Order: sequence, then structure tokens, then C-alpha cells
Amino acid sequence: MNSWVDPKIVSKARRDKAKLVFDRFEEQQPQCVFGLGDVCCKNCFQGPCRIIPGKQEEGVCGANADLIVTRNLLRHVAAGTACHTDHAKEVLLALLKISEGKTKSYPIKDKEKLFFVARKLGLKTFGKSVKQVAKSVVLEALEEFRRQEGLLKQREGLTLNWFKVRANKERMKAWSKLDILPVNADAEISHALHQTTMGNDADPVNVLLSVLKLGLVDGFAGMSLATDVQDIIFGTPYLTKSTANLGVLKKDWVNIIVHGHLPLLSEKVLEWSRKMGLHAKKVGAKGINVVGMCCTGNELLMRQGVPMAGHVMQQEMALVTGAVDATVVDLQCIYPSLQDIASCYNTRLITTIDFVKIPGALHLPFEVENADRSAKKIIKEAVKAFQKRKGKNVLIPEKVSELYGGFSVEAIKTLLSKLDKKNPFKPLINEMKSGNVLGIVAVVGCRNAKLRGQAFQEELTRILIKNNVLVVGTGCWAHAAAQADLMNPRAVKLAGDGLKHFLEKVGEANGLEALPPAWHMGSCVDCSRIGALFTQLSEASNTSLPDLPIACSAPEYMAEKSLAIGVYFLDLGVTTHVNPALSIKGSKIATRVLTKDLEKLVGSRVIFGSTPETAAKKIIGVLKSKRNL
Amino acid sequence: MNSWVDPKIVSKARRDKAKLVFDRFEEQQPQCVFGLGDVCCKNCFQGPCRIIPGKQEEGVCGANADLIVTRNLLRHVAAGTACHTDHAKEVLLALLKISEGKTKSYPIKDKEKLFFVARKLGLKTFGKSVKQVAKSVVLEALEEFRRQEGLLKQREGLTLNWFKVRANKERMKAWSKLDILPVNADAEISHALHQTTMGNDADPVNVLLSVLKLGLVDGFAGMSLATDVQDIIFGTPYLTKSTANLGVLKKDWVNIIVHGHLPLLSEKVLEWSRKMGLHAKKVGAKGINVVGMCCTGNELLMRQGVPMAGHVMQQEMALVTGAVDATVVDLQCIYPSLQDIASCYNTRLITTIDFVKIPGALHLPFEVENADRSAKKIIKEAVKAFQKRKGKNVLIPEKVSELYGGFSVEAIKTLLSKLDKKNPFKPLINEMKSGNVLGIVAVVGCRNAKLRGQAFQEELTRILIKNNVLVVGTGCWAHAAAQADLMNPRAVKLAGDGLKHFLEKVGEANGLEALPPAWHMGSCVDCSRIGALFTQLSEASNTSLPDLPIACSAPEYMAEKSLAIGVYFLDLGVTTHVNPALSIKGSKIATRVLTKDLEKLVGSRVIFGSTPETAAKKIIGVLKSKRNL
Repeated sequence: MNSWVDPKIVSKARRDKAKLVFDRFEEQQPQCVFGLGDVCCKNCFQGPCRIIPGKQEEGVCGANADLIVTRNLLRHVAAGTACHTDHAKEVLLALLKISEGKTKSYPIKDKEKLFFVARKLGLKTFGKSVKQVAKSVVLEALEEFRRQEGLLKQREGLTLNWFKVRANKERMKAWSKLDILPVNADAEISHALHQTTMGNDADPVNVLLSVLKLGLVDGFAGMSLATDVQDIIFGTPYLTKSTANLGVLKKDWVNIIVHGHLPLLSEKVLEWSRKMGLHAKKVGAKGINVVGMCCTGNELLMRQGVPMAGHVMQQEMALVTGAVDATVVDLQCIYPSLQDIASCYNTRLITTIDFVKIPGALHLPFEVENADRSAKKIIKEAVKAFQKRKGKNVLIPEKVSELYGGFSVEAIKTLLSKLDKKNPFKPLINEMKSGNVLGIVAVVGCRNAKLRGQAFQEELTRILIKNNVLVVGTGCWAHAAAQADLMNPRAVKLAGDGLKHFLEKVGEANGLEALPPAWHMGSCVDCSRIGALFTQLSEASNTSLPDLPIACSAPEYMAEKSLAIGVYFLDLGVTTHVNPALSIKGSKIATRVLTKDLEKLVGSRVIFGSTPETAAKKIIGVLKSKRNL
Repeated sequence: MNSWVDPKIVSKARRDKAKLVFDRFEEQQPQCVFGLGDVCCKNCFQGPCRIIPGKQEEGVCGANADLIVTRNLLRHVAAGTACHTDHAKEVLLALLKISEGKTKSYPIKDKEKLFFVARKLGLKTFGKSVKQVAKSVVLEALEEFRRQEGLLKQREGLTLNWFKVRANKERMKAWSKLDILPVNADAEISHALHQTTMGNDADPVNVLLSVLKLGLVDGFAGMSLATDVQDIIFGTPYLTKSTANLGVLKKDWVNIIVHGHLPLLSEKVLEWSRKMGLHAKKVGAKGINVVGMCCTGNELLMRQGVPMAGHVMQQEMALVTGAVDATVVDLQCIYPSLQDIASCYNTRLITTIDFVKIPGALHLPFEVENADRSAKKIIKEAVKAFQKRKGKNVLIPEKVSELYGGFSVEAIKTLLSKLDKKNPFKPLINEMKSGNVLGIVAVVGCRNAKLRGQAFQEELTRILIKNNVLVVGTGCWAHAAAQADLMNPRAVKLAGDGLKHFLEKVGEANGLEALPPAWHMGSCVDCSRIGALFTQLSEASNTSLPDLPIACSAPEYMAEKSLAIGVYFLDLGVTTHVNPALSIKGSKIATRVLTKDLEKLVGSRVIFGSTPETAAKKIIGVLKSKRNL
């Protein structure tokens, strides 16, 4: 299997005595088999307990493997969900400040989406200013975190408002039947911890239902809310061209990597980098080169066409180039190792969020009220660091890939509307009906050191498109696919005939050679865009979500967030492949429910497959079984 | 060291092939050393990672021992806190329904406390009905779970309302200085999960500050809120006499054990057991005998004088007697093993809460709206089970201990007021000043299988009272102390002269031989009562909490709740002993901060001590160091 790891960078790291994620992974071998199977429990201090079939089948309290495995899963999903709901709240509170005039640093770029959301929420917009509408949307959105049983607002039900914006009736019915409609995002997350403490739920199926409930919290009060609000503030992405790979760093420029997940920070750093070029030139640089890492990279690519430096596992390697003057981070997926690496080179590591500090890094708190001032400070620090680096040797990989990104649902509709203005999705649905396009698969998620540099994501994507499957995706997959040139129109040559023909047809209608066969739909939080795409296709084709030829794969997932996202897709009725295999094998009940019974509950199931070939075969099997479009 | 384990019951369990918690504990030996040290991390799926000093000092992401240990601690405390805030919400929503007339099953027994709380919250009560005041209190209390940054109600600040009810100014200042005042209980708990996911906070001190913040959530939006609301509904406890130990079961009676934590259920079961005696007599029983297990036992003892059957580790042994017809559980500390044991005997295990199910048990959902109907159903099930059991052999231990309980702060004040009507605390403070009473120690918490049946709690209590330390406590300690006859006035003979004299003086003034030297202050959630007692003593003596000769000990803690409670005491400035030792030794920073630097932050620290003697010595040392009363 191919690898995406640049051997020159790895050698340089060795020479520089910079320890990389791969090194730490090998050091950790062999990993604990109980931990790997999630059959150990630390939920009370009579433990830790571990299950050994036939020998010790119960923890001290009496919890068996089924209970331990499902409880651990619920806690993982709760933690993942908390990341997205906190993210949503962060941008929501920014929109509140914008709407109240408490910050002038941010615009409201997509008024159309603001009014769309307001209408979906049943809010009056007539005669109101943009800021007034924004504030009323924020207040409805904050209800996701304020709603309490027993305190019923007349106009709302007892579940998430964002269902009104993004869910369809058929799904709502299925979730309601299972009694998994959440009341309040934070309360459900907190409750999951309660449910899983020693001496509460002993029913593994009950625990799994809470897992499904948190998937809805994640998808709607987390990801969809975050994406919608970010689009309102920063604009909805449209087709854009850019470049990817570590080669986007430039030797004689002030290189700033923005890394993390919140566009609130990175958009401002970008803006001020464009205004402060003179500062850089004064110290002998050719200018300021802001490039994006991880999902911040995806956000900036989607809306601003900013080059994508690399995915989560390249965050250290980027510094090893010796060319990065500042890495500015907000939250999530920031390796704690980063300061150790930064200190091997001339890189200034700047943390900006009060609950994401790294000892040794420079902490410059980033506040929405003073966003401009904070961004300017950051740029100045980077320029200072460049002065120290200037003239020293760097090793920037040569390869730079070209890509097209920006495939929001709105962008996709705009592109497709060139074939059918009235029913933009119709041409795609027709191709799926005929089987020319076998289906759509969302490939999402992280990179995981367990794969030891394998290119599972790229291989899987290649096999799928070869089999006429349109691939859409987000997160670190997007970096991987871009670097493998799969987001380039020229990649249609790798696609099966049916898919190729379709992509060329839409491409030509839009003045392009073709559309790429792998569509970049955004950051990991933008899995909501994929959910929205699938939901809208379901409505446009009058086919329920579980009956659509769609599937999902997280072939190299690593973060707890990924599990939450996976459950969201399962809730949507989308069968989901994961690799590494979920740690549920120790529990017969969890295995049966998630890989089988779930079909009856929400119309989807979990599938495994530890090579791109086996994964692709199973996924294609799922698509082929859904031909009643 | 003595043991509280009844060997006859254990032998019977062996004969009946009923596996007990001790058996499972031995089966689990040896326990994982990484888990024991909390130096393993499963917060992402590149792991599990474990720290081996000198060999593998970092997880795959770069997290070191300091980070892994503190993150694990924060997650434990978050889970423990969630138990108490959920508990508070449960009774709060009941009070809402009562105030809105949606249930007629519950009274508002303590109107005085209701109005006290309302006044503290700054609510107008003049001319309002009890129900109106109750509703306004509920709305303010629910703000603990609704408050969002940026949405400021005029009358409130950005932190918990319950600080107004239960915190003093000096402490508020200390917490504010550390910037640990919580905004919203559920949001803080959820946020703690976010903070501890892979790639967020890498600063262990920052993580520890969040631990301190959650201690405040636990103490005020969890425990204090729950206790105050329960007192409002069910009445504030006053001195009451009762019995303890498994001997409270009665052979020819329908024996019902109520087990868990919520008085909403147990109060009703008790009420209907008193009304439905005839049902029992019809089937040949002498009557219905409701006894309490675990903290439900404490709640019923405190307010109703109901016999206390046993603590958390006796929940299985109670069933081994063969005399229990029904065990009715609500939530928390319900061993998942209970149904296995129940099925060895004739016991009907009845679960009542939707997120606390046990496969095989009878689930009768308990709803506040239909509390009476639910309670009647439960009694009928127990009577049915008695019919099957009738005539079969039982083994009920003979020993029954007499105790006095019901030491709410109000009860204590009433007792002391017989010595000084105007300043009830003055006599106690004077004794503490003179050193006749060396200080007050709260002994709280669970029983833990790791102690293999030792009587650490009882031994520690004995040593302390012998050294003139007044012992107050809650939770499973209360069962242990009662069973060891330490809550009996006759136990004053075990006390040092100063303490003995004081207890006799107050006792005589109240028409008793003496007060017991160990005061039962309630269930584990009632650690809030201890906090309130300490706070009021601080105010009455014009001495800051950290300067008072008080301390806390959780000598056999087991639940994640205990850690949250421990942090609450630390926040209050109360130095706290824990055993088993906290799993922080792997982290130099956590060890230094919690056992040392914390003094500078909140005026308290964590102490260890793995025998009653060493623990007592250290605790007494703390009390002796605080003589500036």
C-alpha cells in the first residue's frame, strides 16, 4: 500500500532529534489488549476491572463485557459530541455579539442563509434588520442549550430547534419512535456521564439508545448548527481552486500555519496577513504566506481558497521543514507534542483559547470583541520569528497538488443547476437511478498512527470512483485526497465510465474540463453538509434516506469526535464503515445491535473492513443493495 | 483491623452459589497497574497509551503523565458532578410539577426553608402563595442549567444562583480570583469532556483549575440544590431515633428494601407501605417492613426514622438473607450484579428509572405525576413475592444497632440553641476555641472492595472522637458508624473528655443522656449540609473557612461522585484525606498542586493515609495547625 509520508522529512526529523507521532506510536507498542477492546472499566475506584472471557466475566460491581463496552462507547461519543456542541456555541456567541454590535470585527456575509434559517425556525423576518434577524436566530439556537423539560415555550416542542432547519419528517418519525429525540445538548451529554457511572444503567441496549441520541445532538445541535452559523458569518463556500501539500510553504516568506477548527481565528489571521505584507517586507520577507492545517485548513480553503498545508498527522512534519515561523492554533487535534517540535526549530507556537494551552507556547488569548487586535499581534509575532529564521536551511517538499474545493450543498446545487435549473438534483438522481453513478459515499475522518502511514483513504477513494461511486468528504480525508490529486478534474480519468461521463457533463456545463471525482465538502464539522446533501437528495428523489444508494466511511478515524459523527450518519440511515474496527467485539450485544439490529431501528448498520479492498467491496455491496430509487 | 462482614451471610452465599462483590474483586486481581495509576489514556483511538517512566513518557499524541493523569481526573470529577446535578434536576422538576399543580402526590413540607431560599435568591415573597414562591424558586434554580454567556438577566450575575443561598463572601472572592466560577452546570460538565479530548488542553494546571470549577458545580448546582429542594418537599430532618444493620429485616413480614438516592420514590413506597398493611396480612405476613439501603436508607432515616438496612457493599448480602421480598431501586450505586443475586432467592428486583435498567429485573417506570399509583404497584409486587417466599428458610443476622440521626444544620442549631438561644453555634465555637473540642471532621463516602471488608471508617471515627474530634458525616459512612454503635449516645464513653463533656452538656439540655459523638447528616448528596454547617460556623466565628479547625475524610471512597464531593470540600478550604490514595502519583504536577500548592489557591490540600492510624494522625495534625479561631 502506498504511503503519504515524505521520507526526506522523516530523515530530517531524525537528524534534528525531533520525535514524531510515528515514533511515539512505535514506543507505545504493544498496546494494551484490554484497552484496545474497550473491555476495561475505570468508572469507579474499585477498579480498574477487565474482562477475560471464561475467567473474569464481570467487574467488581458486576458489570459484564456488554455493559462495559457500551458504557465506554457512550462516554467516547459524549466527549466527541461535546467538541461539536462547544464549537457551535463558540460561533453562536460570536454571532450574538455581532448582532448586538459588541464586535465590529466580523460581518454577516451570507444574509440569504440567515433568512433561510430564520424562516425554517418559524421566525418573522419581515421588516427586520439583518442584525435583528441574526439575534432572533441566535436566541432560538441557544435554546438547544437552555431547553428544560417542564419549561415549554409555546412555539417549540421539547426537542432541538435545528431539526426544523435540517431534518426531514421520515427521520424525525423514526427517531421519535425510538424515543431518542434529545431535549438539550449539554444536558444530554452530562446525562450520558451520569448514566454510565457505577451503579446506574446496567442495560447495554439502553446505553446504546443513548449513543444514538447523542448522535443526533452531535449532528444537529453540534455540526449543523456550527456550519450554518459559520456560513452566515463567513459566507457559504462555492467552487474554488487551490493547492495542497507541505509544498505550499514558501522559503522566503513569513509562513504562518493556522491550525485547529474555528474560522473565527483563522479568518482574521488571513485578513490581517493580507493587510500587513509591508511588515514582512520590512524584515526581508517576500510577504506573508498563511496556509491551513487540519480543519482550519479546510475552512480557509472552502471559503477563501487558501492553500492546505496538511492533515492532522502532518502538523509536526510541517515544523520539521524548518520553514514555519508561527503555528497559530485554536482548538481540537492540536498535538500536545507541538511545542517540543517547535522548540527544535524557529517556530513560534501560539495558543489562543483559554482551555487549549500548551506549556512553553506563547498564549495570546483570542477574543471576538478584539479580534483585529489579536490577529495583528499574532502576525507581528510571526514576523519576529521570521527574522530569527531568515537565511537558515529549510527543507520544503516540492510536490504541490492542485485541487478544486468548496463543494457546499449550495455550490453543488449551483453546479448541477446548469443541467436542470428547476430541479438541480434531478440529473444526479437520474444518473443514480440508471446506475451510471452507482451511489455516493462520504469518506470522512482523521488519520490514525495505527495505520503507520498507509494511504487507506486515498486507496479507498480510488477504488470507489473507479466503480462509479461519487466520493464526497471532509476533514483530514480532504487533505489526503487533495494531496493524492483526486480533487483535480484530471482525476476523472480514474473514474468508471458512468461517473466520468457525469462529471464531464456537469463540468462542461460550468466551463470546466470536468468536476473532480472527489468533492471537498469542508472541515470535519461540515459532515453536516454531507448530511444536508443526503437529506435533500432524499427529498428530491422522494426516497427515504435508508433507501438511497449512499454510505459513509471513516477509514482512519482517531478522534472521539469521529465516533459521534459516525453515529450521526447511522441515525440518518447511512450505513457506515469504520476502520480501525470499533472496539465492540468484546460485547456480543453491542456487536449484534450495531452491525445488524440497527437496520431495523434506523435503517443503517456499522461495517468493518481493514483494507481498502475489503472496505470498498462491502460499501459497494451496500450501494448495490439499494436500487429502489 | 476489624471487619463488618458477617461470616454467616458469606457462608450462606457460598452455599447458595451467589457471587458477592468480594468474589468479583478477588477474581479481578491483579488489577492493571496503569489503570490503578490512571496513567493510561483512551481519549482517542490511536491509543490506548500508557506511561512507563524512562521508557515511554508520552502517548501517541504527545500527552505526558501530567496531562493524562489530570485529564482522567477531570473526567472522573465531571462524571461524579453529573450524578449530582442530574439528581438536583430530578427533584427540581418534581417541585416544578408540584408548584404547577401537575402532581398532587407530594406536599411542600418545609415552607420556612422555601421562603428562606426565596429570600436568599432575592425573590419577592410578600403576598404570594406557597406554590407561587415554589415556582419562582424553581425558575431561578433551573437557571443553573440554562444560563449562557452573553444572555444576562438583569438581576443575576454570570454564575450559579445557588452561591447566593449557600456560599460566603470570602470564598466567592477566592474562587473569583482563580476564575473558576461556573456559568452553567451542564455546560461546564460537557465542556470538561471537550477540554480533555485529544488535542485540546495540554496544560495540566489548567486542567486542574477545571477540576476545581466542577467541584463548585457539584457542591452548589448539584448537592446543595438537591438537598435544599428535597428539604422543601419532604421536610428538613430533625433528631430521630432508629435502628441499623441487616437485622432490621423481619422474617414474617413483607420486607421491602428501597435502594438508591432519590427520596421521590422511597418516600412514596414508605407512605403506601403504611397504608397497605392489610394487603400483607391477607397473605399471612405480619405487615410490611420498608427498610433503607445505601443513601435512600439515609434519606428515609433522616426524615422518617426508617431502619437502615445497610451500605453499598451490603446490597447483595441483604438478598442473601433470603428475607427480602422486593428491592426497589432508583439510581446510583445499584450493582449491576443485583439481578443475578435476586434470582438466586425469591427477591423481586424492581427498577424504576428509565436510564437505570437491569436486564431481568421488573421495570416499573416511576413518574412523579403518578407517584401514588406507581408506589402501590410496587407494594403489590412485593406482597406477591412474599407469598412465594413464605415459610422458606431465612438467615437474618441478629445484631441491630440503635442510633440517633437527623443532624441537619437546622437540627444541630435547634439542639445547640438549648445552650445559647441567641447564638446557637457559640457554645460549640467556644469549645473549639478552648480546644475541648479539637475540631470537626467530616467522614464521608462509600465502601470500597479494595479494603476487603476492613472497617477503616469505623476505626478512623473511633480514633478521632477519642481525640476530642467531633465527627459528622454522610453516605455509606453513616451506615458503618451506626452499625458500629457510634451514633448511639452511649458511644460518648469512647470520646475524649472534652468532647464527651460537650456532648453530655448538649444532650442533657435536650433531655438526652448525651448526643452521640458521630452525627448522621444524611445521604451523600447531603455533604451539602456539612458544607453549610462549616460555612455557618465560619460566619458565626468570624473565621475564614480555611482557618477553621475542620477537615474531611473519604476513607473508603469508590464512586466518581466521591471525587466531585472531595473537590467541593477542597474548594471550601477544607483539607481532605482520601483513601485509596488518589491516582495522581504518576504526575508530579498533579501531586504537587493537589497536595501542596492548593493551600495557596483555596486554602486546603489533599492528604493520604492508608491506615486509620496514619490518617487520623495527619488529620489531627491539620486541626492542631488551625488554632487561630
